[in-house]
Amino acid sequence: MPMVKTIEWLPDKVRIIDQIRLPTEKVFIDCYNHGDIARIIREMNIRGAPAIGVAAAMGIALAAKASAKTDYQEFLAEIEEISDCLAATRPTAVNLFWALDKMKQYILDNQAKPIAEIKKGLIALAVQIHDEDIKACQAMGRHGAELLPDETFILTHCNAGALATAGYGTALGVIRAAHELGKIKMVYVDETRPYLQGSRLTAWEMTEENIPATLITDNMAGFFMSKDVINAVVVGADRIAANGDVANKIGTYMVAVLAKRHRIPFYVAAPLSTIDLTKANGGEIPIEERNQREVSHVKDIQLAPDNVGIANPAFDITPSELITAIITEKGAVFPPFTKNLARIVNE
Amino acid sequence: MPMVKTIEWLPDKVRIIDQIRLPTEKVFIDCYNHGDIARIIREMNIRGAPAIGVAAAMGIALAAKASAKTDYQEFLAEIEEISDCLAATRPTAVNLFWALDKMKQYILDNQAKPIAEIKKGLIALAVQIHDEDIKACQAMGRHGAELLPDETFILTHCNAGALATAGYGTALGVIRAAHELGKIKMVYVDETRPYLQGSRLTAWEMTEENIPATLITDNMAGFFMSKDVINAVVVGADRIAANGDVANKIGTYMVAVLAKRHRIPFYVAAPLSTIDLTKANGGEIPIEERNQREVSHVKDIQLAPDNVGIANPAFDITPSELITAIITEKGAVFPPFTKNLARIVNE
Repeated sequence: MPMVKTIEWLPDKVRIIDQIRLPTEKVFIDCYNHGDIARIIREMNIRGAPAIGVAAAMGIALAAKASAKTDYQEFLAEIEEISDCLAATRPTAVNLFWALDKMKQYILDNQAKPIAEIKKGLIALAVQIHDEDIKACQAMGRHGAELLPDETFILTHCNAGALATAGYGTALGVIRAAHELGKIKMVYVDETRPYLQGSRLTAWEMTEENIPATLITDNMAGFFMSKDVINAVVVGADRIAANGDVANKIGTYMVAVLAKRHRIPFYVAAPLSTIDLTKANGGEIPIEERNQREVSHVKDIQLAPDNVGIANPAFDITPSELITAIITEKGAVFPPFTKNLARIVNE
Repeated sequence: MPMVKTIEWLPDKVRIIDQIRLPTEKVFIDCYNHGDIARIIREMNIRGAPAIGVAAAMGIALAAKASAKTDYQEFLAEIEEISDCLAATRPTAVNLFWALDKMKQYILDNQAKPIAEIKKGLIALAVQIHDEDIKACQAMGRHGAELLPDETFILTHCNAGALATAGYGTALGVIRAAHELGKIKMVYVDETRPYLQGSRLTAWEMTEENIPATLITDNMAGFFMSKDVINAVVVGADRIAANGDVANKIGTYMVAVLAKRHRIPFYVAAPLSTIDLTKANGGEIPIEERNQREVSHVKDIQLAPDNVGIANPAFDITPSELITAIITEKGAVFPPFTKNLARIVNE
């Protein structure tokens, strides 16, 4: 993988590439404690559902390493408090809560061990969550690439790439794997307002690996679909409900509606950790409302008049009826999703 | 009308408000000859189908005023050459060609008059095209406002406002008239990438007149429609084909598809000069491809990596089956559009 590392566990710190400064600057941020990790998640120096799950796990590992507690219950209470703080950074992506639960469960399962051992185990688990995420992305890539035609002209929205995961990517993992098979003729990259994950991050990942890409504004997707130059769509997911409804970056729903009208297959690539069987449908998934300034400004340039109202929901819900298949590390899941998602999660 | 004047004929020049600098700066540009006019149309200091029609007419008036020709045929030839130059500035909006044709027809119809009289007549005609555009917008406003419910939550895309016309606006004329009737509860304003006519211009027009407005990114339209908070859509048009297909700002098609899915009425407001019966359907309307830099940069800030491909079609085609009604100065036209558009144009 020629990509820079999205997030890396180093002996005394966690290093991430600052996704706010990409693509014009490659700057790394070193995080020394869980407070640093909470800040980079909240401020979106790191983003993408799987990536923030990994970051949260590493935040717990940093906190455990630094803990002065010698009593198990006190140690557990301290980590639980820090876990709540990390959980409060962003509400929609379920991988964050999934990773924090996994870390906590490890502490509960290893009560008999000395604290020093538990600390080592938590660090090893955070690294394992990181490594398994890359493997899951590679598996998703293989499963997804099989579904694509020999000459693929594919649209993607937002960045579900190496930068959104520990590496390789979910939606972009599918594109990478298809590219390795020689199938990718063109990747249409939605710029993805307001945060521009498409133009800043996905376009950068594609150019870094010489995968043919055309950047478009979000409102051009329908134009190119109507010209019959797109034959597949693949996106990531921040949370998938039990019925297959998908929460993903704002604008995903629009792409899915257009794809349906033009009979273009619409694929969602996400690890099993993104599936939340406790939510019956997409209506139960909380949608984050972010700062108005993301819409009114690009860096210091003001785009809108003072005093206009602004809305900034960061995600939307794509109903499962618009989804052709959900591609996981265990294979592609087709409708009926309620039955087939439950089966793949529980098997 | 408390709005600034979009374009104004002054004794020795044409004055426009520079739409590139809005909303943070109110700067006027004075045009002294047809070359200045061609430049401000091409560079989009003035934009909007009816407004560039008015600008082109005033460009011909400036050229006529400055002409040293004393021979009718030489005068006609000079104006025809200048007309071709103005016609080459932008390809999609038909109002540009309509206004130039009208100016030329005046010269042909008044061959018997002295050149000095023809010059005066051309200036008077340019001013008349300007004034009639405002009246047409006001009439569209009245006809359109009648179609809207008592509590209107309306989405608009791009800027089909006072700034896109001689004044009052087409789509925003409908919104202004409905606001005067107390019907407007909320205007959802698509920011309209890449040129940001929504955030920079429409949001500004709404705040200037205290019409309640919420700015959203283009990819949020589906989210708000799915929340049932939008009950009407109104947009302008750059050209309407004989069958009712509408060329309008890129992204209009996407909004129309979403409106259809959510059973929200989709209205197009445009003067009769926008209807081009010589084009059987939208497929025959030329679509302008603009500079890649509009997508890759916001002012001097680079949003995308070097070397990524970029597409920038400035318009798309909304098929007539997605359109509820086309609102003209002579009233609203409903399907079947082929029959009803021909009738209203020719009556």
